[in-house]
Amino acid sequence: MRYELYYWPTIQGRGEFVRLALEEAGADYVDVARRSKAGLSAMMKLMQAKTGTPSFAPPFLKAGSLTIGQTANILLYLGARHGLAPKTEAGRLWVHQLQLTIADFVQEVHDTHHPIGTSLYYEDQRGAAKQRSAEFRKQRAPKYLGYFERLIAGGGGPFVTGRKLGYADLSLFQVVEGMRYVFPNYMKKAERDVPGLIALHDRVAARPNIKAYLDSSRRIPFNEDGIFRHYKALDK
Amino acid sequence: MRYELYYWPTIQGRGEFVRLALEEAGADYVDVARRSKAGLSAMMKLMQAKTGTPSFAPPFLKAGSLTIGQTANILLYLGARHGLAPKTEAGRLWVHQLQLTIADFVQEVHDTHHPIGTSLYYEDQRGAAKQRSAEFRKQRAPKYLGYFERLIAGGGGPFVTGRKLGYADLSLFQVVEGMRYVFPNYMKKAERDVPGLIALHDRVAARPNIKAYLDSSRRIPFNEDGIFRHYKALDK
Repeated sequence: MRYELYYWPTIQGRGEFVRLALEEAGADYVDVARRSKAGLSAMMKLMQAKTGTPSFAPPFLKAGSLTIGQTANILLYLGARHGLAPKTEAGRLWVHQLQLTIADFVQEVHDTHHPIGTSLYYEDQRGAAKQRSAEFRKQRAPKYLGYFERLIAGGGGPFVTGRKLGYADLSLFQVVEGMRYVFPNYMKKAERDVPGLIALHDRVAARPNIKAYLDSSRRIPFNEDGIFRHYKALDK
Repeated sequence: MRYELYYWPTIQGRGEFVRLALEEAGADYVDVARRSKAGLSAMMKLMQAKTGTPSFAPPFLKAGSLTIGQTANILLYLGARHGLAPKTEAGRLWVHQLQLTIADFVQEVHDTHHPIGTSLYYEDQRGAAKQRSAEFRKQRAPKYLGYFERLIAGGGGPFVTGRKLGYADLSLFQVVEGMRYVFPNYMKKAERDVPGLIALHDRVAARPNIKAYLDSSRRIPFNEDGIFRHYKALDK
């Protein structure tokens, strides 16, 4: 089965968590909106459908007759099919719980540059963004990163849910990548406190399929349109 | 099996979405932190555990040997066990997708009064809160409410996933309740545009188990410590 991934064509964003799972799995997929303008129109049209299961926002994945939205939900589906999640119910619920906590963290990273509203420009909310970023670096980022570190340390490793790589590991890799891009100054110090998370990041980066993906043109570079944006003023 | 729900004892918050499912199902459960101070300490201790599956934040549910965190993940588990979700894989993924979109909406409602940081008081971010609320009422709330309305209209009803009530219906009921509490002025007008959603709300409210719950002392009144808070200045 050839999957169809629908996501904004010029950013990593939330779609990247799905791309990493598809790439690690060696799955056959098409990144529809990147293929052509017609792909982007098709995506918009599917979202506006009046029946069926239209998504509120991308990413969503077509898998045969299924159309699945919400990043963590897509990973729940792919994880079971491609050996990227534990087989037991307890294991599946735990890795999904982690993914949802990662999603919360990613949302908080996003809101550092858009604390007032997504329909406004960053430039129109710079003051609030500075305040929110300071708060985020002081309170939230250490709390989340420390939580992930504690799980990795307590889990017996080398991956966050144990001996086998799962989709949450791929997402934690992306979280470290994103945080390094957004807050290089902050991360320079913060990484010392989370050696297990950094080791996990490096382990994921070295996976053959992930390495090939990162070296390819399929990996869109970080930029100031996505979730992870670098603004010097927010990384004091 | 007697479930143990762990959540903050004085607010509805995210725990309420779980409480509604447990109540509708007539499940046997204990709201641990509301029972005693020792219950609250037990909750904090479980969250700080160095091994196992500690949650980043409440709510979480103990179900026999399982401990499950993240609201939508708890509902994924309960939905399958108590007939509050479709039986097919496609149906289960769809209702879970809806729940995750509801969670996104709830987070946005929360951020209207805390746009800068959860560790700061509302009073310390009132200016940003006014801006974010205006943006929310203008852009985000109509987009989400309109989306839910479209799904209900297109789904064949009377519930959001069809003929049978599921956990997403209970959560949509709570969303309407919360929005009425937070933004009474805004909702007075907005409800005219979402008659299907309001009818669904009323249908849920009339369910015997839900009605009994709402009339009981188990339902904590809305207040200014939870997600849904009413500040006059934010509801112009």
